[in-house]
Amino acid sequence: MLADHNRMAAYHSAIMGNADVFKDKVVMDVGTGSGILAVWAAQAGARKVYAIEYTDMAKHARQVMKANGVEDIVTVIQGAVEEIVLPIEEDGLECDDPEHPERVVDIFISEWMGYFLLRESMLDSLIRARDKFMKPATGLMFPSHTTMYVAPVQDEEERRMNCNEYAASMSDWQDFQETTKQVYGVEMEILKSDFDREQKDYYMWSSRWRELPAASVLSERKMIKVLDMMTCTIEDSKGVDMGDEASKFEFAVDGDREQGPISGIAGWFTADFKSRTDEVGKDSAPKLSDPTILSTGPEMGYTHWGQQVFYFASGIPLMQGQTTNITGSLEMTRTKENARLYNCRIKYASSRNSNNDGKQLMKSAAKEQVYMIP
Amino acid sequence: MLADHNRMAAYHSAIMGNADVFKDKVVMDVGTGSGILAVWAAQAGARKVYAIEYTDMAKHARQVMKANGVEDIVTVIQGAVEEIVLPIEEDGLECDDPEHPERVVDIFISEWMGYFLLRESMLDSLIRARDKFMKPATGLMFPSHTTMYVAPVQDEEERRMNCNEYAASMSDWQDFQETTKQVYGVEMEILKSDFDREQKDYYMWSSRWRELPAASVLSERKMIKVLDMMTCTIEDSKGVDMGDEASKFEFAVDGDREQGPISGIAGWFTADFKSRTDEVGKDSAPKLSDPTILSTGPEMGYTHWGQQVFYFASGIPLMQGQTTNITGSLEMTRTKENARLYNCRIKYASSRNSNNDGKQLMKSAAKEQVYMIP
Repeated sequence: MLADHNRMAAYHSAIMGNADVFKDKVVMDVGTGSGILAVWAAQAGARKVYAIEYTDMAKHARQVMKANGVEDIVTVIQGAVEEIVLPIEEDGLECDDPEHPERVVDIFISEWMGYFLLRESMLDSLIRARDKFMKPATGLMFPSHTTMYVAPVQDEEERRMNCNEYAASMSDWQDFQETTKQVYGVEMEILKSDFDREQKDYYMWSSRWRELPAASVLSERKMIKVLDMMTCTIEDSKGVDMGDEASKFEFAVDGDREQGPISGIAGWFTADFKSRTDEVGKDSAPKLSDPTILSTGPEMGYTHWGQQVFYFASGIPLMQGQTTNITGSLEMTRTKENARLYNCRIKYASSRNSNNDGKQLMKSAAKEQVYMIP
Repeated sequence: MLADHNRMAAYHSAIMGNADVFKDKVVMDVGTGSGILAVWAAQAGARKVYAIEYTDMAKHARQVMKANGVEDIVTVIQGAVEEIVLPIEEDGLECDDPEHPERVVDIFISEWMGYFLLRESMLDSLIRARDKFMKPATGLMFPSHTTMYVAPVQDEEERRMNCNEYAASMSDWQDFQETTKQVYGVEMEILKSDFDREQKDYYMWSSRWRELPAASVLSERKMIKVLDMMTCTIEDSKGVDMGDEASKFEFAVDGDREQGPISGIAGWFTADFKSRTDEVGKDSAPKLSDPTILSTGPEMGYTHWGQQVFYFASGIPLMQGQTTNITGSLEMTRTKENARLYNCRIKYASSRNSNNDGKQLMKSAAKEQVYMIP
């Protein structure tokens, strides 16, 4: 949570602003880190807080609990949330459901989100912990809903820099190859295409962390996935399917109102802290009187998440008196090598229509590119 | 070997300049990478070259052998050099020693060196391969000797930058801690000393890669370890013992001739390609007519190894009419967490003598600091 005011403020107002909901409840904080969310839950009146931390930060979290006088309420447990055992009996907790005596948790709090929501996130662990420990009909998740967005953006300086660095790297290769042949008598050209592919993947076909100004967003954002944190599944954490209707986008950028070119597509997310909306819980779970939202979009200023930008190979220019349309879709899948990393496949085509008579003036061929989120 | 001309030139002249030694010999290249050393060995007239590569670069190396028409001479073997089996019979090779039929290699070539010689180097593997495959009395190593050096250097801009970054990081922490307490009601001061230690380790007590200008070296360099590549052992690869006489240094910096302050101690290495000097081989092994040397010191300009600089917490000033002496020692040991990484313990004290009468004018307390080579 260090030095990210938007993040701190959102979690703080979500917990302290809804202290009535936390009063006398059993809370679990998944991935507590230095333990600040667990302290807030205790300060908000929770009866018992389990703060789960896999790393040795657990030792620090225990110190923080003592320094804040909440060590009797917060129990820091070091381990994988999938494997821990809660001291339910010692803590005098009971579950209404005799078939699931471990379901004693009223509220899950967690700061589990990664870049573009899913990258290196703890979502899988959170889902497993929820299904194991949460009271199904009355439990709450903080955040309760998360939403992924995309929008076309203008960010030519960075786009051009990436292209130039790729070109410089290939020019260095050419130098190396010629020196190696002429001075040292060894032919290396056979390796050029592999080297070229590596450099392209690194400089051109990887998204970039950016803190974009609000003005760089050229149209309305498009929601591409919503996770209801109460009902989402391990399947949901695998990414965004090309088949999903939600994964499709259609943007219209008015050349009279916006200054182009369109440099690429930016992705970010929001996290909501609000009442349950799912069938099982929408009537039976407690209501939040003070819902709040954390946005990592360009309109919100700095968060450590920033935005991930997928740059086009060439910027798409805007024209006065014309509207430029981008239609396409974004698919997000785990990489084969590492389940915590993701690739994004972006398909898109652009067209331009006259603002006067709506006539189509240009239509590009469809393009498709796979980007790594590094 | 990419784009490091000093490195390329040294290996090229060592191999091609001693083609008479390579003629009709059996060569092994440990860690061949893209295979350039193996190509040179073949071009120098080797009868058979085994190019060993652990990673998938082996595939590329095979392409390079074909592109250079040496695929009949060079056999690329993918695997750990400790585990590979040489196709000795198929290649019609014989060993004089029936007890060690695998000892068929006349010459080892390898570019195994890491930062400050040992960091992440392949030395252990090379030693094991040498002991398994080399003809003991007549074998040659390329390079044949490697030497580690240290010298006091003037590099205040970098030293101050590291100190300032540490200070800025602690100032950010103070801000965070106060905001967390005053705005969010959580006391975090208990974590400050751990955070402080981490930041000091990162900014102050880690050596830095530098490409120093020759003028930054303030006295004669001091050799702290020599490895005869024919006789060195796994024990040697563990580092530099504080007990070794060689690990001690004594530098005299004349305030009339040099401009200080002394910012720290720089470390680098040289690699020699020369005839054998060990008891077993000095008479029986072939002589090199054209010895060569690769230096990674500040006098040589760019190599990708650069120098590692261990900065003092404060610069030691030089005075007109006085000589500043630094005496101490450098110990280098593998880290507990990762055998391929090293820590350096530097002990030192400084004193100043008048250039007129030699009288001692100042003597500092002894200092001791452990640095990580990151």
